[in-house]
Amino acid sequence: MEFIEGSVCAAKGFRAAGIYCGIRKNTSKKDLAMILSDVECTAAAVYTKNKVFGAPITVTRNHVADGKARGIIVNSGNANTCNADGVEKAEKMCEIAARVTGLAAKDFIVASTGVIGKVFDLAPVEAHAENLAENLSVSGAEAAAEAILTTDTVKKEVAVKIEVGGKEVKIGGIAKGSGMIHPNMATMLGFITTDVKISAEMLKKSLTAAITDTFNMVSVDGDTSTNDTVAVLASGLAGNAEITSENEDFRAFSEGLAAVCERLARMLAKDGEGATKLLECKVSGAASEKDAKIIAKSIITSSLVKTAMFGADANWGRILCAIGYAEADVDVAKVDCSLESVAGRIEVCKNGAGIPFSEDVAKTVLSENEIVIDVKLRDGDGFAKAFGCDLSYEYVRINGDYRT
Amino acid sequence: MEFIEGSVCAAKGFRAAGIYCGIRKNTSKKDLAMILSDVECTAAAVYTKNKVFGAPITVTRNHVADGKARGIIVNSGNANTCNADGVEKAEKMCEIAARVTGLAAKDFIVASTGVIGKVFDLAPVEAHAENLAENLSVSGAEAAAEAILTTDTVKKEVAVKIEVGGKEVKIGGIAKGSGMIHPNMATMLGFITTDVKISAEMLKKSLTAAITDTFNMVSVDGDTSTNDTVAVLASGLAGNAEITSENEDFRAFSEGLAAVCERLARMLAKDGEGATKLLECKVSGAASEKDAKIIAKSIITSSLVKTAMFGADANWGRILCAIGYAEADVDVAKVDCSLESVAGRIEVCKNGAGIPFSEDVAKTVLSENEIVIDVKLRDGDGFAKAFGCDLSYEYVRINGDYRT
Repeated sequence: MEFIEGSVCAAKGFRAAGIYCGIRKNTSKKDLAMILSDVECTAAAVYTKNKVFGAPITVTRNHVADGKARGIIVNSGNANTCNADGVEKAEKMCEIAARVTGLAAKDFIVASTGVIGKVFDLAPVEAHAENLAENLSVSGAEAAAEAILTTDTVKKEVAVKIEVGGKEVKIGGIAKGSGMIHPNMATMLGFITTDVKISAEMLKKSLTAAITDTFNMVSVDGDTSTNDTVAVLASGLAGNAEITSENEDFRAFSEGLAAVCERLARMLAKDGEGATKLLECKVSGAASEKDAKIIAKSIITSSLVKTAMFGADANWGRILCAIGYAEADVDVAKVDCSLESVAGRIEVCKNGAGIPFSEDVAKTVLSENEIVIDVKLRDGDGFAKAFGCDLSYEYVRINGDYRT
Repeated sequence: MEFIEGSVCAAKGFRAAGIYCGIRKNTSKKDLAMILSDVECTAAAVYTKNKVFGAPITVTRNHVADGKARGIIVNSGNANTCNADGVEKAEKMCEIAARVTGLAAKDFIVASTGVIGKVFDLAPVEAHAENLAENLSVSGAEAAAEAILTTDTVKKEVAVKIEVGGKEVKIGGIAKGSGMIHPNMATMLGFITTDVKISAEMLKKSLTAAITDTFNMVSVDGDTSTNDTVAVLASGLAGNAEITSENEDFRAFSEGLAAVCERLARMLAKDGEGATKLLECKVSGAASEKDAKIIAKSIITSSLVKTAMFGADANWGRILCAIGYAEADVDVAKVDCSLESVAGRIEVCKNGAGIPFSEDVAKTVLSENEIVIDVKLRDGDGFAKAFGCDLSYEYVRINGDYRT
């Protein structure tokens, strides 16, 4: 597997575009994107488990029920959620996309991100959809990656090249994250394309496995969004023999898809609202993988751990505290904990109790912008990684005055 | 029931003291407290459910196993948690308390709060325990209330006068909260005294019921502390017929105890680390009381709701989002939501969708320092209240540099 340039247009058969149409007040930020395949794709998508979910999810679920799709239309600036006429408008957005591409509404996946509960004005989409379609190109991936962002500060693009059944296959994706990020079985927005030939059933299986260890292990603020959606389109143009079972080709593809998802997940965590640091928590030796996941996520979600990391303070007691209240099976007397970055590694806790360490070295290690919290238990073989970020003044500023 | 002046020395038979002994570096903050009864008390205590729990909890649990106690010794500045010799030192602290009061070590409840994982130096306690005992007096309650604080900015003291079986009974308490506050089955530190005559079994039952609706419904930062302890001592000097069953007297006493706990819980939430506002979330019409509690706590715990309240931003979509990801039974299409303060009340959401409201009025309502988030469901009779606070820059400042 090799990471390559590009994102949603890296695989054969895809074009994309991103423009400013007027949904957002800020004219310097794009707010409408489209990803289109030249051919019919197998499609799979996963969604938020929040009982309050966006209207676009209702429509998308319906449109991909047959395992097929041709394109994706997405807006930022309005989540189209908690609106009485939301479903109608999400459907209408697909109709607009269909009209300007000569396809059918049901060929489209639709997603929205932004403020919840604000009436969604479709007029800007109507007025600029033609222009969006005219902009579709292989080089339009970057503009699409920009148009789906909200409070994100950087685009999230990734692509890999793998080999499946002797054929070169590419998988690429874009994502948006930033706030209200604590995905549950799906996440924020992530759009992935590939040219692999694969059945809808296997594609769904591969996607579900990939997000469990990647997007679902990210937390920015503990709030599971209403609009989380990750969709993958497979054009089948790579020329591989169709993947229809969990064979070697399936494993090769799944490994690539998981790598794309993990890279995007790390990007999301690192660009969490107000974040100055990426936090990666590795838990090994847990009683089970499930326990490892629960513990890793508990640590990464703790406001006290996050603020300590912001302050480069090796306050490991807060890590132990978060392990202790996690609803997992753990023997706290067997917990070892280290903190690590490119600047070095320090062990801070052994067998559940503190050990002497240099505060100066700790400060140096924690002053880097990517920190690994390494927790070793001796309860079994369970391993998990979770991705998060620190909690800064900037998070408070962004969210204290987001809507008005 | 009547709220009266005072706290842990309001009831007959109690004296208290608080001094600076040198556990904390900051000499302007007291760090050692004692509460002592003139007579043997029935005692009950509840503790954190965190699997990582402080050594004092191990010792206290052991000392109150017989339902009896005479006093409480507490320090701030060090949690005596995750220390290899913690239990030994917590026991030693009781021995010191016993020595200076002429009682037995097992007569004492012990509690510690402060940094986790820092070796606990008992020398300052040894050196000043005599002085602490000499300071014991009815007017020492205030000093005790001060000595148990950490990052708290104000003392938490409350007392009520009730009538039980024709006799006047007093119940008073002190508490500390501030950070790492998300109690689970017990909470931060709360010490309550009363002169009611009651069996240990009934006292435990009354305390457990009271904390469920009060301390356990507070969240400052979602982190369940390792040292949460609420203890109650009943001197029996009020002269009422001993309460030994769930009779009318039990209900009268329990109502008073719950009122003391609720008042302390509100004080904790309002003085949460960095808090500028008390948030009270009322949920009515839930499918069950349990569902109401889960939903109220989910809202009060959401970082996005908390920052919006800090910014006086009526971003109700975040409230709906937190309802949606709460693990409770709820029909989101039947959610009504209002925001209320002394400045007024605005309805922001009806049947799960937004309704027009004046942003100016909303700003005025939310600019007060006590905000009620009123959520009405139409799923049943379940009701709950939860208490929290906003999330401010100050929270980040306090916790980014707490330990070093």
